[in-house]
Amino acid sequence: MALGEFELIARYFAALGAVRSDVPLGVGDDAALLAPPAGQQLVAAIDTLVDGVHFPHGSPAASIGHRALAVNLSDLAAMGAEPAWALLALTLPEVNERWLSDFARGFGALAECHGVALVGGDTTSGPLSVTVQLLGFAPPGAVLRRNGASAGDLLYVSGSPGDAAEGLALELQGLSEPAALRQRFLYPQPRVALGCALRGVASACIDVSDGLLADAGKLATASGCGVEIDAALLPTSAALQARLGLRAAQQRALLGGDDYELCFAVPVARVPALEAQLASPAVATDLPALKCIGRLTAHHAIRALRDGTVMDLSTAGFDHFVAR
Amino acid sequence: MALGEFELIARYFAALGAVRSDVPLGVGDDAALLAPPAGQQLVAAIDTLVDGVHFPHGSPAASIGHRALAVNLSDLAAMGAEPAWALLALTLPEVNERWLSDFARGFGALAECHGVALVGGDTTSGPLSVTVQLLGFAPPGAVLRRNGASAGDLLYVSGSPGDAAEGLALELQGLSEPAALRQRFLYPQPRVALGCALRGVASACIDVSDGLLADAGKLATASGCGVEIDAALLPTSAALQARLGLRAAQQRALLGGDDYELCFAVPVARVPALEAQLASPAVATDLPALKCIGRLTAHHAIRALRDGTVMDLSTAGFDHFVAR
Repeated sequence: MALGEFELIARYFAALGAVRSDVPLGVGDDAALLAPPAGQQLVAAIDTLVDGVHFPHGSPAASIGHRALAVNLSDLAAMGAEPAWALLALTLPEVNERWLSDFARGFGALAECHGVALVGGDTTSGPLSVTVQLLGFAPPGAVLRRNGASAGDLLYVSGSPGDAAEGLALELQGLSEPAALRQRFLYPQPRVALGCALRGVASACIDVSDGLLADAGKLATASGCGVEIDAALLPTSAALQARLGLRAAQQRALLGGDDYELCFAVPVARVPALEAQLASPAVATDLPALKCIGRLTAHHAIRALRDGTVMDLSTAGFDHFVAR
Repeated sequence: MALGEFELIARYFAALGAVRSDVPLGVGDDAALLAPPAGQQLVAAIDTLVDGVHFPHGSPAASIGHRALAVNLSDLAAMGAEPAWALLALTLPEVNERWLSDFARGFGALAECHGVALVGGDTTSGPLSVTVQLLGFAPPGAVLRRNGASAGDLLYVSGSPGDAAEGLALELQGLSEPAALRQRFLYPQPRVALGCALRGVASACIDVSDGLLADAGKLATASGCGVEIDAALLPTSAALQARLGLRAAQQRALLGGDDYELCFAVPVARVPALEAQLASPAVATDLPALKCIGRLTAHHAIRALRDGTVMDLSTAGFDHFVAR
């Protein structure tokens, strides 16, 4: 990539660095200089999206920019951390001004929404791939882990899982409707405010990227428990039910990925604290709907129940995009 | 990539996280938790190496692991920062245990050498590409910038520039000798101790990745100056001179990339401080040779002189690997 092309790219991203006052030196030197707040710990995540693996080839550039930041914001949300600074490593097969402008717009709108400054980056020639590294803060001892749940804790999920996987299926079939489902894949909303609100309330938390049952299973396993999800309690959206019917919508909600909702455990004794937290006017306006969908168990099985019977999901037959 | 493969990969990198006590939570949850030292600023860099762009296809995996960390260590060295924590995003076309083991060994040896802990990562399927994000510290106000030089400042370079570019040329021709040059491309030594020693001494600093003349030019331009390098002062290695002859070795030193040496400006009044710093037993053992090769100028030209005449390097004809 010629120097002029680097400068072109830098122009598109320069505007994304000006949103915070704790960046003594942003994009443009060999490294960025950051001033962390006193008394906080740093929380750091990194995620890569590869063309044709994490998004269909030809996806809208604004969606790729949005999702590259969203998956990292979701990691920080799952920890109950407050996001602050992002670094972007962008590998491009060619320099296309329209694509770059759309990508920067998608990335920038979500960054602004969450008060994140782009403080550094690298641009290279190669097959299309986007890596974002995100830094944030949390008070010492406050982060949510995967491994803190106990048998008997209630299991919750935010939003309406399954929509994003169906949105991806629409994308792969070239269908633009129902737009509500497609948007849930293209522009997932990371649950940052919810993650912070769950500090001191949830005993364990994870974000739903690989699928609700799989990710709830990771939380349970890390906590030395099993988990049971009751399919009848799954908060599937009206749009998903209309498209698939109730039973297939429930399967989609259990197995589909890319939702970036939060799945978390709450000890029964802290349910009043959860409800009080959710009712607080300071946080309630930014929060998605929450639903109790099951509980952590003393046996180690990871399973979903329908009418009291363990569901056999091995033959559910939903086509996953590609192996991750 | 199946879950079992992720776990396999995680095993190779788990050992690289245990070298520091300031990592409350490393690899394994949604994000890492880090405890920055009080009173320091953070310094953050990110760099990607793409197969066939930044290293020849089929390069030794240990070299790829080493270089992916080295280019980031070099960015922090150029800022005078002390490295601490790395995150690794690795995109692999397939899971090959031998390759992963070699990659982890190359990455890990250099990380241990510089006290860097691997605290987080992401592994994805796709064309081979490695992104490393590195965090370090510096006291407020201490970092070296590109833009602090003034006309009249002396220009220095560390080590023997040009060796790495010739080492890459050997690699591309499938030649294993001279090994000294080949090693300089495959296993560059980032000048971390030198960068820290130059705090308060150098007026500006940059690392040599794109070529000495090009990078000195960036430093000069950022500082609002020009720069003149005297070819006769270039510290070309005996191995490079033996292979190319003196004049071509000097051209290689001016134009070749991938050296990861430091190029820096020192005000004349601070030359005694530089010499005192270099003579200090506490730092001298880790430092490469330094050489004054020219000076910053009030005119804005970026040029190299031979026998008092401006060199015409436009027809030097060295084959660059590929466009970056």
